[in-house]
Amino acid sequence: MAQEITRKDEDYSRWYTDVVLKAELADYSPVKGCMVIRPYGYALWENIQGALDRLIKETGAQNAYFPLLIPESYLKREAEHVEGFAPECAVVTHGGGKELEEPLVLRPTSETLIYSMFSKWIMSYRDLPLLINQWANIIRWEMRTRLFLRTTEFLWQEGHTAHARYEEAEEEALLILDLYRDFARDWMALPVIQGKKSEAEKFAGALVTYAVEGMMRDRKALQVGTSHNLGQNFARVFDVTYQTAEGVQEFVWNTSWGVSTRLIGALIMAHGDDVGLVLPPRLAPYQVVVVPIWTSDDERGEVFPVVEKVRDALGGDIRMQTDDRRTISLGRKFYEWERKGVPIRVEIGPKDVKRGEVVLCRRDEGTKESVPVESVRRKIDELIEGIQENLYRNAQRFLEENTFRVDRYDEFREIVEGDGGFLLAHWCGSGECESRIKEETKATLRCIPFEAVGEEGACVVCGGESKERVYFARSY
Amino acid sequence: MAQEITRKDEDYSRWYTDVVLKAELADYSPVKGCMVIRPYGYALWENIQGALDRLIKETGAQNAYFPLLIPESYLKREAEHVEGFAPECAVVTHGGGKELEEPLVLRPTSETLIYSMFSKWIMSYRDLPLLINQWANIIRWEMRTRLFLRTTEFLWQEGHTAHARYEEAEEEALLILDLYRDFARDWMALPVIQGKKSEAEKFAGALVTYAVEGMMRDRKALQVGTSHNLGQNFARVFDVTYQTAEGVQEFVWNTSWGVSTRLIGALIMAHGDDVGLVLPPRLAPYQVVVVPIWTSDDERGEVFPVVEKVRDALGGDIRMQTDDRRTISLGRKFYEWERKGVPIRVEIGPKDVKRGEVVLCRRDEGTKESVPVESVRRKIDELIEGIQENLYRNAQRFLEENTFRVDRYDEFREIVEGDGGFLLAHWCGSGECESRIKEETKATLRCIPFEAVGEEGACVVCGGESKERVYFARSY
Repeated sequence: MAQEITRKDEDYSRWYTDVVLKAELADYSPVKGCMVIRPYGYALWENIQGALDRLIKETGAQNAYFPLLIPESYLKREAEHVEGFAPECAVVTHGGGKELEEPLVLRPTSETLIYSMFSKWIMSYRDLPLLINQWANIIRWEMRTRLFLRTTEFLWQEGHTAHARYEEAEEEALLILDLYRDFARDWMALPVIQGKKSEAEKFAGALVTYAVEGMMRDRKALQVGTSHNLGQNFARVFDVTYQTAEGVQEFVWNTSWGVSTRLIGALIMAHGDDVGLVLPPRLAPYQVVVVPIWTSDDERGEVFPVVEKVRDALGGDIRMQTDDRRTISLGRKFYEWERKGVPIRVEIGPKDVKRGEVVLCRRDEGTKESVPVESVRRKIDELIEGIQENLYRNAQRFLEENTFRVDRYDEFREIVEGDGGFLLAHWCGSGECESRIKEETKATLRCIPFEAVGEEGACVVCGGESKERVYFARSY
Repeated sequence: MAQEITRKDEDYSRWYTDVVLKAELADYSPVKGCMVIRPYGYALWENIQGALDRLIKETGAQNAYFPLLIPESYLKREAEHVEGFAPECAVVTHGGGKELEEPLVLRPTSETLIYSMFSKWIMSYRDLPLLINQWANIIRWEMRTRLFLRTTEFLWQEGHTAHARYEEAEEEALLILDLYRDFARDWMALPVIQGKKSEAEKFAGALVTYAVEGMMRDRKALQVGTSHNLGQNFARVFDVTYQTAEGVQEFVWNTSWGVSTRLIGALIMAHGDDVGLVLPPRLAPYQVVVVPIWTSDDERGEVFPVVEKVRDALGGDIRMQTDDRRTISLGRKFYEWERKGVPIRVEIGPKDVKRGEVVLCRRDEGTKESVPVESVRRKIDELIEGIQENLYRNAQRFLEENTFRVDRYDEFREIVEGDGGFLLAHWCGSGECESRIKEETKATLRCIPFEAVGEEGACVVCGGESKERVYFARSY
């Protein structure tokens, strides 16, 4: 059975797909590039969504829902924006049996439609800031797709805000970037680097794009979330103005920000191992699986009352599942829940019961320990916290061990083309050097960190003057 | 200000639209027939969704997510289904700048795609029942649209289940129908009638459709939810089979069921009045609005500590808002929250504070009462329950008062073409009589009730034999 999932070091990409399919997170659909999120994957998404939604609402944002269909002409109004998104659009040309007068685009992102509504709703400074978030499906026509990481349809949240002043928009964009970092750290057990995107990598239509990026176990970067200060670009195009307290009409300042079902891809690749998923307890659909072990009715009679006792002890707030299926072997059960990344397995067999104990197995370390039934709740509370921290610590160490300061381009290429990792290298700031690196090494500029490493140097490509090191890596 | 909303008896349809727009539940979007659900409307939807989601999960169903895009050929496989839905489809013909080989339809409902996946997932009797639910957006190209009631895009949940036996599917369809009835009663304060749809009114592709229907304040019916026993229609078309314990391949039996953002339309029309929305407390985004009243800094100093005290007393589990805006008058504040249907307003002014009291105003009755600050929590708990019950009782009485047993067709027409209502009339069971009624009176057969009124009679149209009375009404 172990060969169900390809080993990571054999073929990382197949390992990933195997995990997604065999852990029943998702499946291919009949439409190219679109996937089905299966119940186990969706339960994970619901936990992500629930936690993020609370954090977003705490910032004062309110949820709303905007249409999927956007007039093609709207998308075209912002020049950079249409250039970025038009090639990815799916277009509805017929509705109700007739050809439409104007084609409609399926939202590849909702700036244009949302800001056209903002222009109706915002009158005066009293209406600002306006902080809106929506959970929605998004369509981007992708040529090369990959489950969760890049699919034609995906689910996300997109925040859209309007402010009276530039500084407030900038503050909002950074507030949300921190929120994404905190979410990645506290819920996903994923350390991320934070910073600004280069001109070449920024969002089509933004003044500036900020991002948080995590390191996957193949040392590639994955963009976990982005937050954009849109300046007044969309406000000018969609005439989103407000009257100041002094009676002057001014354009608003906008931000937008989002994370998507990609986060599930990040979870898989940050923590997974050769057996399958390893889920952080705070997001796992089941934190605990209870597996009773019995071979006779007598044993069943001894074991099941203890199963009930354990269930009662964990009651309510711990997400758990009891696997008492008779139709499959114990080995298969263990393997199935390991593959699905359930953080803790509780084994309860006749020998354990006689000793008044149960066995706790942790998925992250593979270790087992017998504990008295009375202390099972306390032990599991500890383990939930301990596993969450352990996953974060491991990911943090992995990130540190695979982040390299490099000063020479040959060294840069050697690492990128070898095991990979994050490269902190000096860069002169020119698009030429950035695109030469991309062409020659497939590494892209992931971000310009906020806390400039206080040291000047020479661009790793051209030798030109550089004030700070920036992050390069191959990425998803 | 009162004229912001058209009076119900002046123009019910304009009243409805006024309420939706002025209570800021929704707004028109630039795309014909698509609406924007504004934060206040979406908060209402989130409360509906949260409660329903829990109820649905309690039945054992799991959430998942299936693609928006469906190959046109899939829709065509079930003959009745395509006939029903093809005229309403929006079609994507281009993606990524190219014409697609096969046009893709935006889901008008997901039977075809979901059952094609079920055929991959279901192998043996051990995989049954499979109980899946999805929350998603749906596109149906509607000619005449109306905010919440009939829009080109709407949000809904759609359940899809597979069972080993006909009886189990039938049981599931009825279980969910009861769930919808209970939800309408307990959460929406809406009494509904339950029953079976006629052949003419059933879902395209179903064996039988069950529905719950509520009465709106203009005495028209609104279909609140439907539940279909699909038989083996889709299983045969998409080859959804399972191996029985005896090793035989059999087709599964399916059900599907759903409710949508229409429920918001039902809430508005079941309880609203000339001032605007009246929301049942269990679903209201804010159950309480606290309005401090002050004219000087001194008064502010007296009043605000009591506001804090009240807020603390209501803390946590009661959804509330404090309206301390200085920019608008007290009258406008009161009117705004009344229009938005907030069940309870707490007024706290200097005179009240001196007496150690606050004033509670209930939206449903318009009555006021002074209560000591110490008992505010208990009083509000009582009011929340009392208002919820009162709304239900009123709706129940209205339903009873406007349900008529009629035996003659002239009487039938007189009522339908007059004030309207639900008509319990004998019907011979023929499509001819049903469609004659529809053509001549615009009333449709809403449902054939489960509990046959134990009396035989003569069809109200043709005089033919009838075993039971059925419900007719004009509807949304």
